[in-house]
Amino acid sequence: MVVSDGEATMDAANATGGFAKHPPRRKVIIDTDPGIELIAGGHRAVPSGRVSPGFGFGEASGNLDLGAWCCADDMMAIFMAFQAPEVEVIGLTTIFGNVDTDLATINALHLCEMAGFPEVPVAEGPSQPLKRVKPRIAYFVHGSDGLGETNQAKPKGQKLPKSAPDFLIEKVAEFPGEVTVVALGPLTNIALAIEKDPNFAKNVGQLVVLGGSFNASGNVNPAAEANIFGDPEAADVVFTAGLNTLTIGINLTTQVIFNEQDLCEIRDSGGKYGQYIFDCCRFYHDWHLASDHFDGIYLHDPTCMAALLDPTLFTFKKGAVRVETEGLCVGHTLLDMGLKNWVGNNPWIGVPPIDVGITVDADGVRTLVKKLLCSS
Amino acid sequence: MVVSDGEATMDAANATGGFAKHPPRRKVIIDTDPGIELIAGGHRAVPSGRVSPGFGFGEASGNLDLGAWCCADDMMAIFMAFQAPEVEVIGLTTIFGNVDTDLATINALHLCEMAGFPEVPVAEGPSQPLKRVKPRIAYFVHGSDGLGETNQAKPKGQKLPKSAPDFLIEKVAEFPGEVTVVALGPLTNIALAIEKDPNFAKNVGQLVVLGGSFNASGNVNPAAEANIFGDPEAADVVFTAGLNTLTIGINLTTQVIFNEQDLCEIRDSGGKYGQYIFDCCRFYHDWHLASDHFDGIYLHDPTCMAALLDPTLFTFKKGAVRVETEGLCVGHTLLDMGLKNWVGNNPWIGVPPIDVGITVDADGVRTLVKKLLCSS
Repeated sequence: MVVSDGEATMDAANATGGFAKHPPRRKVIIDTDPGIELIAGGHRAVPSGRVSPGFGFGEASGNLDLGAWCCADDMMAIFMAFQAPEVEVIGLTTIFGNVDTDLATINALHLCEMAGFPEVPVAEGPSQPLKRVKPRIAYFVHGSDGLGETNQAKPKGQKLPKSAPDFLIEKVAEFPGEVTVVALGPLTNIALAIEKDPNFAKNVGQLVVLGGSFNASGNVNPAAEANIFGDPEAADVVFTAGLNTLTIGINLTTQVIFNEQDLCEIRDSGGKYGQYIFDCCRFYHDWHLASDHFDGIYLHDPTCMAALLDPTLFTFKKGAVRVETEGLCVGHTLLDMGLKNWVGNNPWIGVPPIDVGITVDADGVRTLVKKLLCSS
Repeated sequence: MVVSDGEATMDAANATGGFAKHPPRRKVIIDTDPGIELIAGGHRAVPSGRVSPGFGFGEASGNLDLGAWCCADDMMAIFMAFQAPEVEVIGLTTIFGNVDTDLATINALHLCEMAGFPEVPVAEGPSQPLKRVKPRIAYFVHGSDGLGETNQAKPKGQKLPKSAPDFLIEKVAEFPGEVTVVALGPLTNIALAIEKDPNFAKNVGQLVVLGGSFNASGNVNPAAEANIFGDPEAADVVFTAGLNTLTIGINLTTQVIFNEQDLCEIRDSGGKYGQYIFDCCRFYHDWHLASDHFDGIYLHDPTCMAALLDPTLFTFKKGAVRVETEGLCVGHTLLDMGLKNWVGNNPWIGVPPIDVGITVDADGVRTLVKKLLCSS
């Protein structure tokens, strides 16, 4: 359900689930890296008090000597946007991250078709970060051995004949100040658009980023979160470029968790994505169970999408953010909390402030995510 | 009151304030940079809810267009150690930081004499960090214009004819496993001792550091705390060397505050340091009042000393700490919180863990500091 004029019509409202008389919808481009990622031996932070050793979710994953990081959360965020009555998805752009860029493109086309929006354009980004070889922080497996992608049909659609940065530049110029870009992967496409078009930064309505870890641990290493680590130079370009930017780090997203009951509820909801989401999450969840005895999955990307849809579920701190591109802490995101007037110069002074998520109403986000994913 | 055998005698107990029958005292060397520091235009983080605009503390500091950072907190920490019945101060070593090293030495000699312990040896450290020019993060003024050091008599004593690192090496070799080193400034002396003597790390009983900022803002810039920024290479050597180390960062020390009432209480206590502490804190406090309307001073160094005296006032996280020595975040301290088994290698893997202060009982620390500084 894509309309080009930003006006909600009754038809449009009906097609998105019976919502009517809503205000003009926000034009959204989702920059994403959907896929299935397997990481040797890895596991994520396990919050205390969430262990449920008795939980069994499908067959035992005895063959999973690799840790499966199914990007079910990318997929859920994309479906959320398609379901949200206040959003008009005007395109997807793809980037490496969880998978290589070319596979991310295939997956993006597939997800649009799955969601019933085959006409949404998909533009492919580059296969490498701005200035470095793609960091091989894990090795990536997709669709092999029946691990997660067995349900995925080959998409009928084709990617656009233009690059992701060019598509972004074109769309925000077409609707200056009206387009929200949601960046769910490394920020290479956004940085390239900024560098290519001096008007891009001011034409973007809002940039909502899933990236960084603020005053908290990373997930690639103690210093860095995966999306920022994927292209730290791009992230530093983006965070310092003066866009109207809001970023949601893993300091928040690791607080928002779906457990068995949530996933079963989505499966049994009668919503059109229910079984698909359940299946995609199964490997992710089974691996957590086998490796961590952790009954749940983190809603990284859905939490970011929730920040676009309902920012009142969050609190934010406005401040300058820089990204380390050298040394031990490469990929580290560091926010000036604004507690001091600094003596002398430092790399944060003069940088336009952005909004950084500081707290999250985790139950509120879970409720919003479920509401959207359970709707038909 | 310094004894060399670690046994507390009745005389020793009497001399330290009437405490008797206490267990053998811990031998402590304090590595310190006491002085008066003035920073142009600087101010520190001001916790909410602590503003008391009505407070007047002596004359108005109308001439203070510079921000005064009186190192009253160094002095207080040193006096705490002299007053604590369970501690035997067996030496002070000096380092640049708040002031140049040579002035830190004079101030250290002065403080020992002030405290009634003129026989405590003082060994001077180098005037520069390990690998870089001393960072001029501020300009330092000491004793001029009557700003803070007017009561300071020229010390009668002399520094030792050996360097601070050599003194540290010698003392921990003399009492292997028994000496606690409390480092209140940049870690240059400790790093030099580690690098010079392969046995130093295992001979040290415990190293208690005032340094770093963990999952919180720095105070030199958003990334770095002053002591670590003063010699980041040294700090990385020290934190990774396998010493039994505990570090207290400004994430904790900025929670521990003395206000007007606390300082007046110390002045009026009849304790031998009361008036001196009050006078030294006055400039620091007046400046806070004029510049920030902040009724209080941070107890950075006393909080660190409290961690030595009563670690039950803190909680700690044991983990690998690295210090960034490159890029934007030079001086940044980053702890592996131990939430993940990392995939692949990273600079934190294989680093011996240290204890990092995570929470503090601020009222408990304030009570302990006052108890020691009010005693005669």
